[in-house]
Amino acid sequence: MGEERMLAIVTEDLDPAPERWLAERCEVVRCGVDEQGFGVLLARADALVVRTYTIVNDALLARAPRLRVVGRAGVGLDNFDLPACEARGVKVVSTPDANTRAVVEYVFAMLADATRPRVFLDRALDAKAWNVARRELVGERELNEMTMGIYGFGRIGSAVARVARAFHMDVIYHDIREIPEMSRHGATPVSREELLTRADVLTVHVDGRPSNRNLLDAVAFALLRDNTIFVNTSRGFIVDANALGSFLRSHEHATALIDVHEPEPFGDAYTLLGLKNAHCSPHLASGTRRAKENMSWVVRDVWRVLSGQEPENPAGIV
Amino acid sequence: MGEERMLAIVTEDLDPAPERWLAERCEVVRCGVDEQGFGVLLARADALVVRTYTIVNDALLARAPRLRVVGRAGVGLDNFDLPACEARGVKVVSTPDANTRAVVEYVFAMLADATRPRVFLDRALDAKAWNVARRELVGERELNEMTMGIYGFGRIGSAVARVARAFHMDVIYHDIREIPEMSRHGATPVSREELLTRADVLTVHVDGRPSNRNLLDAVAFALLRDNTIFVNTSRGFIVDANALGSFLRSHEHATALIDVHEPEPFGDAYTLLGLKNAHCSPHLASGTRRAKENMSWVVRDVWRVLSGQEPENPAGIV
Repeated sequence: MGEERMLAIVTEDLDPAPERWLAERCEVVRCGVDEQGFGVLLARADALVVRTYTIVNDALLARAPRLRVVGRAGVGLDNFDLPACEARGVKVVSTPDANTRAVVEYVFAMLADATRPRVFLDRALDAKAWNVARRELVGERELNEMTMGIYGFGRIGSAVARVARAFHMDVIYHDIREIPEMSRHGATPVSREELLTRADVLTVHVDGRPSNRNLLDAVAFALLRDNTIFVNTSRGFIVDANALGSFLRSHEHATALIDVHEPEPFGDAYTLLGLKNAHCSPHLASGTRRAKENMSWVVRDVWRVLSGQEPENPAGIV
Repeated sequence: MGEERMLAIVTEDLDPAPERWLAERCEVVRCGVDEQGFGVLLARADALVVRTYTIVNDALLARAPRLRVVGRAGVGLDNFDLPACEARGVKVVSTPDANTRAVVEYVFAMLADATRPRVFLDRALDAKAWNVARRELVGERELNEMTMGIYGFGRIGSAVARVARAFHMDVIYHDIREIPEMSRHGATPVSREELLTRADVLTVHVDGRPSNRNLLDAVAFALLRDNTIFVNTSRGFIVDANALGSFLRSHEHATALIDVHEPEPFGDAYTLLGLKNAHCSPHLASGTRRAKENMSWVVRDVWRVLSGQEPENPAGIV
């Protein structure tokens, strides 16, 4: 018998091509954490490939003495205990840029829904109905009349800025880091208060660190303009949904475009349900075929670690 | 009695503020061309302010011996006989940039509709339905995977290019004029054939000169890719609608986003009606409050001519 091949367990979905690629290099077994036999596999696994719902904490790591790397096919690391991984010498790799373009496109798609009424006809209209439609389906504000406020100026926030500038919007942002001028894409840094006060469109692109919980609370919403368009495609927990609901109920000209929620899925009692000015989509912002493929290619970095190379996207501890 | 004030006839809609502005400077009378008394007014009019449906030809000019200027509150001059105006020494002024931003926004709004499926929920979903929605509402292609082909690289075409580049699309264009590199916004000039052959998204922004009739005919559509997204927000008559209909019927993965038609409104027999891959909106691309205001401010140029100044936007003969 030859040398034993290394073992990688895939605990959630993975696209076929990246999975085949990894299987050419090591043994690959699909097994969910709740499935029978997972513990036995875990005891001899060199790598794990997970997505969103596998909780990688010390309890799991304690059962995986050979584990050297966990690949997160995705962007956020909310399901990881990174200090525990570091303490046990387990590398974490992910695909931080996988969904950038998908999210940017989705932000502007929702913004178009909020600003440009339109209809596709399935029958002819007479001249009168035609003119009524044209008179009623009018955009109240063009993008270039509005200030785009970006909360969090990382990969996605800065990419949103570039598109907003191309649409001739004024763009301001707030970030806890200092962004070099050449990376600002024509956006202007402002204080948190100025961001909240001035933005006609406020879009949040902060990361999932626990301290960002309720980043947008009642105090923050009180600063917004009466007709702000508020966009959240980052994490549900960064918004105090009850505070947002109150704001929307008392400001009928404000609009919220909310793609992420806490919890997901939300239940019937969700405070934003049934509000005319709240538009809630089921976490679709990274929903492109390409983004999903990009995420699955985390297997490249998994293999880099297994074969002793430096991974391209190691997770740092925030 | 003092000096007689000059007379301007407003033949179609005009926003109140610009109309008041003009009325502070000369006599302003609203009168459609089909209304009683129009002929008497026309005989002593110094200016006309029109929109889309007033036909300004030699027959009308012959009845207006004092006429010095016609203001077109809008962009296209399809309703003008410009040589006749020039022969009679009547200046034509318009608002060529009035709807640029509105049209650019509309192009990308329609493109989002064609590429990013999405839903706004009015009730909670259970975990299974939530995951089904997320699995089904997936964008097949991201914008950055596609080549944007722009046919006609004027004010609107070049502004579309800038946004497309910001979305990381490859951008190619075809124009009969040579465009200086600094005005290309990162787009690459190509031949007409290369444009039609390579574009994943083909958007037309040519002007309304008569020779552009059927610019997109059966021969042109035969060059398109099987899954082209074809966008027309320019003029209905630049497309041979029957040829487009045939193309769409034989290429189920192609999509047409058509905002302008010939005639408008179209009738029940319109060849694009009822095609699953043709999305027909009722001429909404310039439908923003700001664009309509911009157009109505053509009165500034009307007054410039009446008061002996140079207008900012005189119409040239194509």
